[in-house]
Amino acid sequence: MFFGSDNTAGVSAKVMAALAAANDGFAGGYGNDELTQKVEKQLGELFEHDVAVALVSTGTAANALALSCLVEPYGAVICHAESHIVVDECGAPEFYSGGAKLVTEAGYGAKLTPQIVAGMLERVGRLVPHHVKPQAVSLTQATEAGTIYSAEEITAISSLAHERGLRVHMDGARFANAVAALGCAPAEITWKAGVDVLCFGATKAGAMAAEAVIAFDPEIAEELSYRRKRAGHLISKHRFLAAQWLGFLGNGHWLELAGHANAMAARLADGISKSGVGRLAFPVEGNELLVTLPKVVDLRLKEAGAVYHEWPTHGICVDPLPGEDEVFIRLVTSFATTAEDADTFLSHLKA
Amino acid sequence: MFFGSDNTAGVSAKVMAALAAANDGFAGGYGNDELTQKVEKQLGELFEHDVAVALVSTGTAANALALSCLVEPYGAVICHAESHIVVDECGAPEFYSGGAKLVTEAGYGAKLTPQIVAGMLERVGRLVPHHVKPQAVSLTQATEAGTIYSAEEITAISSLAHERGLRVHMDGARFANAVAALGCAPAEITWKAGVDVLCFGATKAGAMAAEAVIAFDPEIAEELSYRRKRAGHLISKHRFLAAQWLGFLGNGHWLELAGHANAMAARLADGISKSGVGRLAFPVEGNELLVTLPKVVDLRLKEAGAVYHEWPTHGICVDPLPGEDEVFIRLVTSFATTAEDADTFLSHLKA
Amino acid sequence: MFFGSDNTAGVSAKVMAALAAANDGFAGGYGNDELTQKVEKQLGELFEHDVAVALVSTGTAANALALSCLVEPYGAVICHAESHIVVDECGAPEFYSGGAKLVTEAGYGAKLTPQIVAGMLERVGRLVPHHVKPQAVSLTQATEAGTIYSAEEITAISSLAHERGLRVHMDGARFANAVAALGCAPAEITWKAGVDVLCFGATKAGAMAAEAVIAFDPEIAEELSYRRKRAGHLISKHRFLAAQWLGFLGNGHWLELAGHANAMAARLADGISKSGVGRLAFPVEGNELLVTLPKVVDLRLKEAGAVYHEWPTHGICVDPLPGEDEVFIRLVTSFATTAEDADTFLSHLKA
Amino acid sequence: MFFGSDNTAGVSAKVMAALAAANDGFAGGYGNDELTQKVEKQLGELFEHDVAVALVSTGTAANALALSCLVEPYGAVICHAESHIVVDECGAPEFYSGGAKLVTEAGYGAKLTPQIVAGMLERVGRLVPHHVKPQAVSLTQATEAGTIYSAEEITAISSLAHERGLRVHMDGARFANAVAALGCAPAEITWKAGVDVLCFGATKAGAMAAEAVIAFDPEIAEELSYRRKRAGHLISKHRFLAAQWLGFLGNGHWLELAGHANAMAARLADGISKSGVGRLAFPVEGNELLVTLPKVVDLRLKEAGAVYHEWPTHGICVDPLPGEDEVFIRLVTSFATTAEDADTFLSHLKA
Repeated sequence: MFFGSDNTAGVSAKVMAALAAANDGFAGGYGNDELTQKVEKQLGELFEHDVAVALVSTGTAANALALSCLVEPYGAVICHAESHIVVDECGAPEFYSGGAKLVTEAGYGAKLTPQIVAGMLERVGRLVPHHVKPQAVSLTQATEAGTIYSAEEITAISSLAHERGLRVHMDGARFANAVAALGCAPAEITWKAGVDVLCFGATKAGAMAAEAVIAFDPEIAEELSYRRKRAGHLISKHRFLAAQWLGFLGNGHWLELAGHANAMAARLADGISKSGVGRLAFPVEGNELLVTLPKVVDLRLKEAGAVYHEWPTHGICVDPLPGEDEVFIRLVTSFATTAEDADTFLSHLKA
Repeated sequence: MFFGSDNTAGVSAKVMAALAAANDGFAGGYGNDELTQKVEKQLGELFEHDVAVALVSTGTAANALALSCLVEPYGAVICHAESHIVVDECGAPEFYSGGAKLVTEAGYGAKLTPQIVAGMLERVGRLVPHHVKPQAVSLTQATEAGTIYSAEEITAISSLAHERGLRVHMDGARFANAVAALGCAPAEITWKAGVDVLCFGATKAGAMAAEAVIAFDPEIAEELSYRRKRAGHLISKHRFLAAQWLGFLGNGHWLELAGHANAMAARLADGISKSGVGRLAFPVEGNELLVTLPKVVDLRLKEAGAVYHEWPTHGICVDPLPGEDEVFIRLVTSFATTAEDADTFLSHLKA
Repeated sequence: MFFGSDNTAGVSAKVMAALAAANDGFAGGYGNDELTQKVEKQLGELFEHDVAVALVSTGTAANALALSCLVEPYGAVICHAESHIVVDECGAPEFYSGGAKLVTEAGYGAKLTPQIVAGMLERVGRLVPHHVKPQAVSLTQATEAGTIYSAEEITAISSLAHERGLRVHMDGARFANAVAALGCAPAEITWKAGVDVLCFGATKAGAMAAEAVIAFDPEIAEELSYRRKRAGHLISKHRFLAAQWLGFLGNGHWLELAGHANAMAARLADGISKSGVGRLAFPVEGNELLVTLPKVVDLRLKEAGAVYHEWPTHGICVDPLPGEDEVFIRLVTSFATTAEDADTFLSHLKA
Repeated sequence: MFFGSDNTAGVSAKVMAALAAANDGFAGGYGNDELTQKVEKQLGELFEHDVAVALVSTGTAANALALSCLVEPYGAVICHAESHIVVDECGAPEFYSGGAKLVTEAGYGAKLTPQIVAGMLERVGRLVPHHVKPQAVSLTQATEAGTIYSAEEITAISSLAHERGLRVHMDGARFANAVAALGCAPAEITWKAGVDVLCFGATKAGAMAAEAVIAFDPEIAEELSYRRKRAGHLISKHRFLAAQWLGFLGNGHWLELAGHANAMAARLADGISKSGVGRLAFPVEGNELLVTLPKVVDLRLKEAGAVYHEWPTHGICVDPLPGEDEVFIRLVTSFATTAEDADTFLSHLKA
């Protein structure tokens, strides 16, 4: 029962097969190969838009690279206090951008709203040049709390951002889960909703180490290319990075994988709700659940072999907060989670 | 006939098998897995020393990370004018170090000597705080010109460096070729010869995307760990990075692969020498050849399907320089180069 | 009636005289002159401790330089949400440190407490290497809200910081006001209270452009020296920077200047309290007042020629918050503020 | 006899008077004052062009700020191997630019030529994205070797630079000496000759600490403003920085000061030539002389109280090089150098 993170799963069989198939003969290095061209074309088609693409091997690299193309060193990124770029990337956005500032605010379910963004813009960037210059808003889709922005919610924030001269970044480490959940076209919740650059993650969803920075303004391509190389993220045998994407995207495999993960999360959520044990902190919309559990139940589950992490409540407006006899935990499902695992978890929850 | 670079080859069968074997069940992310522990132990044994290890997916990342642990932003790295860190990494060392300076000088066969290093130290770092502070010397083993430092040569430079308070970095993107050529223990040309941090490359030698920063001072471990994460180089499904290393190192596979590449380079070098066509610029000691060719021969080879790059003569003291009717080229062999390929090349050279 | 900032005042006559006196003959550049030696000695005596000193011309430079010696690029500074380093330096600390993070929290009267610091350390730095590494706490003395830390308050925070391996930075742009107000020896509220590096400001108190980074660990001297030069803050005709300090410190002039500014602030505070018009947000301990005023009074004062700024209430726990018919303003006094100015202001307040 | 550097002189009486005059009453901080507006207007008139101006207190800051507006972190600056930005600024350009690379080449008399620049562009920037991207050429006027670029020479280099998409930076720490020597309008050797950004120095020529970044493309103003603040170079009592410039520029005072320094250098050069002792390395065109002296003469001069520095011959093509019994020295004159000092020096030279 591994619910610690979606990255504890391995690689989907189809992605492994694509890697094996790519290992045939010689190919140009650094992206000068046919598979890379094919992926770039395919991503353009998937998003129904001209795109500049930079494939990299981690989500942190993707986010930091993307943001470094959107903000100057004296700029600021408006983002949620508990976003991955703020909390879990050891300052990578500051490093890549040359020291730009992440300006943060709390928000329910790890989501920003136009009101929250407007409030931040009110207090930052007003006093030129003493304040940093807000230049980007960053949204996480699906969020770190397992919630999902609707196309309307994204559009509302993007409109405000664009009006004020800011661009919009989307951390899509779990973008596949969001698309699978919403059942929409990828375009609907990206460029059509005002997103300027998407970091599309394949790793958590079933690839080995494959993330893509996808810029809907292709003019960013040169800068992306230089910055990626300079960051040590231009993979030399690049065909193997491309191959993962081809395996991941082919025949809708990515939506299958993400759909399964979401279904397993829903199964857990449903079971938890019905059990009367513990409380779900937010609607479970993707493949993550934040749950308040009695400590005795937590102990019982761990003894039964369930693996998951305690989680901070900071910044996400959990109401009510866990009591003294409770713990706040995160459960994450993946393409590799089985219904049996979920059911075993639920049986121990109730027992 | 692919002699463009060793990274145009694919992945050795044993490394692919190790990747497939690693794809079994769940495992901790970010290096918290058994395979990673196994690799770290194995590298310590191979080098006969306590080591701090950081696995990453590119050589540029490895070099830049290592250097950023050795020099302050106000520091300088003493290195050859044509070293990869100077010419081919788009400023990654400057980026990672926060703007340290690479101080360069030309040298025969892309090699530094104690005399060259002493000369640079004479003119840099003297005028505190106007000059930057020299804090590291960087050597490439095997060099960008296909030459190899002996243990004695490394020791001579390291001794000088340590005497002046500098530490020694080794860019070992082709370290396997050097060890295979010298037939020495890895320790002989690293810590025993005064190397403080080695960037050990597996990618060019037959892995998919696997490089290791190996610090012989384990105290550097924490800094390496933070800097790697912050640079977006902490792979989440880290077991697959570890697996490549296990496949690469197991049963001396790495020396087999590198030995073969070296043998193919020697075969080419021998054939070129005997052909009376063109001139080898330097002794061919690893898997690279720098060759001056008549333009007509260059044309003939390309028409026959040979793939390779023209190469700059800058900084490596080619003597005599190519004439007007000549071109200067680089040939690189790999584990995947066949004797047939080499012989075909040689036959077209002479024809 | 200029209450906009203490930097709208000119230069005290004694500092001007010191500048004129220094303009005699030739002197070594870059601090290699007698006046500089004299200042460094004098600062050591004033603080009763061995010190490393770096004179610079702005407070932002002093703070950013100091912090860059205390934290790594992957480090974090624990500080108040409304501290000058966070809000008013356009990201200078991030720039100088190579991208370290400022981790912030609100606090009454722009002050941190051990409880607030402990809370921040609880949520940051726990998850190595995903979180940044907390390495410094920064205190502002006097604070941005006109309050002053007692020696005991500083000691309580420093003890906690040192226990956790963090060092303590003090932004002393208004340090003179704090010392004058507390009537203590400078040592009492710096190294004796656990401060590792003080940025001691003379500019706001009456100099032209003179700030000093004062490190109580003299080993930091070399790093400070390199970083200052590299930041373009090593003044070439350095004797004139030293001269300002000599004029400022000589015969307790600095305490006279700051004492006067404090007295003028107290006069205003007293008058406001007695007037029954408006509310002081916090105890007025130095030379700054944060005041809630009825809008009609604000208008009347401005029409009468009073110059001051509206001020944000964010992060400093103003209670009650200004109502719809009120404004929140900051008044700052300086050595050049006259009792007449203060009284005129008060008369318009009440009229 | 102080010939160590022009910054060992004090401040001209007129600049001191301007400082004293500025110390009257209250004025807005951070450049929001009348004197600052006046200087900016005056600089526009002097250069006969719309300009964006950023006043700072050191030449290193001016250069680094200017370059950071011209090159990206992945960019390169083409410059002379012995330029101040390369050798004497402790990596400030790398720091400010976020790690851009200074690409250098030797050249006679510390000057670049179109041929040298073309050669550098040939070997750097070709291999995208492995090479950094050349984005600026930097010229020093007058040079570090006391030579001066003619308008034609600057134009030839600028034309080449602009053709290749690079912008042109001029380090004018001794710009006044160049203008005084050439007897031209400032515009002739700046924007009319293709210079995009000039760093105009007043300090060495007679101010206290006053340099100006002058961009002939006013659109750069916002970026300059943010970057200056973030670097800690926005002086709070800015009127005193402006006052220095007003004193310096008023009634052609700056040309008087620089003209005198040049005349003193010419007097020395003439005397040295006629003495038959030592050799001038280059034509003496500004206020610096590089001279090869017999060691015995060097000793005699020092014993007589002459102060100057030995100088490196690296990169400036001194021919013939100093012999074993010779030293290579630099003499610098200033507004404060007297004819008597020069003559005393010459008398000891010959004695």
